[in-house]
Amino acid sequence: MKILYIFAHPEPRSFNSAMKEAALRTLDEQGHEVKLSDLFAMDFKPVLDRRDFLQPKRTDVFNPFMEQMHASKKGTFSKDIMDEMEKVTWVDILIFQFPIYFTGFPAMIKGWIDRVFAAGFAFNPATGSMYEAGLLRGKKAMLVMTAGADEALYSKGGAHGDINELLRYITHCTLGYTGLEVLPSYIVFGAGKMSEERVRSEISSYIERLRSLAQYAQKN
Amino acid sequence: MKILYIFAHPEPRSFNSAMKEAALRTLDEQGHEVKLSDLFAMDFKPVLDRRDFLQPKRTDVFNPFMEQMHASKKGTFSKDIMDEMEKVTWVDILIFQFPIYFTGFPAMIKGWIDRVFAAGFAFNPATGSMYEAGLLRGKKAMLVMTAGADEALYSKGGAHGDINELLRYITHCTLGYTGLEVLPSYIVFGAGKMSEERVRSEISSYIERLRSLAQYAQKN
Repeated sequence: MKILYIFAHPEPRSFNSAMKEAALRTLDEQGHEVKLSDLFAMDFKPVLDRRDFLQPKRTDVFNPFMEQMHASKKGTFSKDIMDEMEKVTWVDILIFQFPIYFTGFPAMIKGWIDRVFAAGFAFNPATGSMYEAGLLRGKKAMLVMTAGADEALYSKGGAHGDINELLRYITHCTLGYTGLEVLPSYIVFGAGKMSEERVRSEISSYIERLRSLAQYAQKN
Repeated sequence: MKILYIFAHPEPRSFNSAMKEAALRTLDEQGHEVKLSDLFAMDFKPVLDRRDFLQPKRTDVFNPFMEQMHASKKGTFSKDIMDEMEKVTWVDILIFQFPIYFTGFPAMIKGWIDRVFAAGFAFNPATGSMYEAGLLRGKKAMLVMTAGADEALYSKGGAHGDINELLRYITHCTLGYTGLEVLPSYIVFGAGKMSEERVRSEISSYIERLRSLAQYAQKN
């Protein structure tokens, strides 16, 4: 399968980076074709603004939605966005890996979504192209996350609540909205302080999960 | 009351900016003291990274959580963060105004949260300082949002689902987590295309809501 691995952690010696390295190795061994978007390493621009549009429809007033619709038709997004869109078009599965900040994406990943999942490219409310009819239908996505919090905090009855319910704004309203079929999330809880032994065992478990990605993707 | 108005829209001639201008005028007329963080105008740095820490605890490896805890103790965040923290410390109510992108904050606001609501400043899991015991307890917050989508889409049974349920990861897990008491959100739906008449009536309604902010804040 063709996989785009979208990664956001600023530290190459972090546990997140170790997971990413193990993932790239494993997916390659399994015969998948993998492209990597390592957003901090790329110094990816995280904010949607005028500079995203090389030939704006209007120069007097900036309307992000209208400019996205226009640039999607004309192919006139800035190069960094066009490059990411090309990867998304190519892909079977998108894997997003990041540390959970405040029960969601770090700003870096949110910016990638805001800019790359543009109106007219990933969805189009004007033509009803959303959810089952979303423009990315036929592709799949998976969230891979680390949380400092323990699992109990993110369980039904825990102080935060059920993580899968809380993340519905991502799995359903964001990824699902574009037509992506969302695979079950992979979450490492209590990732703030881990013994070396636990690090090793968490990496092993993640490798196991990735080895069965093809079956997983077929089943779901 | 002392109010911090955190605003993120890149276009000064947008409906969002018109709401912001009306809000600043109204809050001033009502006798509140208001500070503004207009994040696009400030060219606010939206991503948490090494540069946020002037005297890092460790230079060999960057651990965002540990560095935040350290910088909170020592007061050694970068100046842009220290400035925002000073405003947050001063404030009675934080108002966040932004267009909803993918059922959440635009990356710009998310970056403000990731960087300013730092561990050790806004919450501290090590001492159990979260939710009722969060470090911002005694203060209040309110979300003011525009959504391109119609309200039906964001209702129970709608394609997205109930917006207030979906935004629980912000109202509860983010704002509530720091101890902030969250006032009911103010949302303008279908904000993509509005007649001039509707713009005027929406601005009027928003002004009305802000006029009763003091009572609102007391009741809640």
